[in-house]
Amino acid sequence: MKLYTYWRSQATFRVRIALNLKGLTREDVVINLDRGDQFKPEYRQENAQAVLPTLYDGDAKLFQSVAILEYLEEKYPNPPILPKDLLARAWVRGFALINVADSHPLIVPRIRNYLTDVLKVSEAQRTAWIQHWLGAGLQAMEDLLAEKKSTGKFCHGDSPTIADICLVTQVTPAQLFKTDVAPFKRVMGIYERCMAIPAFADAHPRKQPDFEGH
Amino acid sequence: MKLYTYWRSQATFRVRIALNLKGLTREDVVINLDRGDQFKPEYRQENAQAVLPTLYDGDAKLFQSVAILEYLEEKYPNPPILPKDLLARAWVRGFALINVADSHPLIVPRIRNYLTDVLKVSEAQRTAWIQHWLGAGLQAMEDLLAEKKSTGKFCHGDSPTIADICLVTQVTPAQLFKTDVAPFKRVMGIYERCMAIPAFADAHPRKQPDFEGH
Repeated sequence: MKLYTYWRSQATFRVRIALNLKGLTREDVVINLDRGDQFKPEYRQENAQAVLPTLYDGDAKLFQSVAILEYLEEKYPNPPILPKDLLARAWVRGFALINVADSHPLIVPRIRNYLTDVLKVSEAQRTAWIQHWLGAGLQAMEDLLAEKKSTGKFCHGDSPTIADICLVTQVTPAQLFKTDVAPFKRVMGIYERCMAIPAFADAHPRKQPDFEGH
Repeated sequence: MKLYTYWRSQATFRVRIALNLKGLTREDVVINLDRGDQFKPEYRQENAQAVLPTLYDGDAKLFQSVAILEYLEEKYPNPPILPKDLLARAWVRGFALINVADSHPLIVPRIRNYLTDVLKVSEAQRTAWIQHWLGAGLQAMEDLLAEKKSTGKFCHGDSPTIADICLVTQVTPAQLFKTDVAPFKRVMGIYERCMAIPAFADAHPRKQPDFEGH
């Protein structure tokens, strides 16, 4: 597998975790988002949206992190990252989408840049924006975990699923942007249990060879 | 099935199309987003995020439109809305996520309200924001269709998939917010072919009993 990656891309973080959980090895190609490497013609040929990640499985090109997670689950089913029961699968996917569709899209670089460059908002307003939307997603996750009648060590059951992967990519930027995560006790309990697993810990932004600090 | 719906909710529009395609009948419960009905305690008990849609299949509660589409495909597989081939499934899901994860989240009511109420942007700036992100998603869809080596009448093949459902919910708000859709010829060709199908046409916001005009 060949993964176009950058240490602090949360969408790529999701794919790194899934590859690690499934024991799939990869070669990394670093696209420096801070330097704007994603806009170079070479990368645009790989990914018309100029976003990360792009994954090659042999000659097959894959894009959009959730589509990649579903593909990995279908092609490399063991260990599974979705439960078998249809309703449980729907819950896990719905939970994951709180991060993927309702929170993360609001804080990616192109949005932060638009807020600053076009709307001319202040640094404080921009930080408040980021913290507001990450906090709203964390609250929704906390509420969903509270209303769930039975759970295990992870969001659903005793092994990690796509829900846990996306819980982690909700918490990590929240910590980076200094959102108060303390009120979200169920979420943070699961986060800690995930981070005790090498597949998660090794995929963390800080553990990537291209990590530059912040 | 019981669907919590509002005529102009694009996420609910996706679910209405899928239910129609699969021949599943439903009872609608209208949640008036313009009046703020989603924030009433009764609805918050159904959906902690206070967003649409929520779908009941018997006693089973489902949330997040893409999780609902995947559930419907797994439980009611005919006619299919995902191709069989693994790479084609990944492409269809990736295409759909351009709408679901990269465009639509940026223009929903809570974002428009935050821009106006908190960031105090002008009406013109807010419209430019909406048109910018819808246009970026349309361009990405157009590019993906152009780079696809073979296709049929729809995004993938000759019958509609989740990709087409999400193409439609990209174009519809673009038209509503007066984004210029003319440059996106491949996208608009597929949009017209979708809208010629009753399952799509009957699910359109304007065709809902609660439609109030705009």
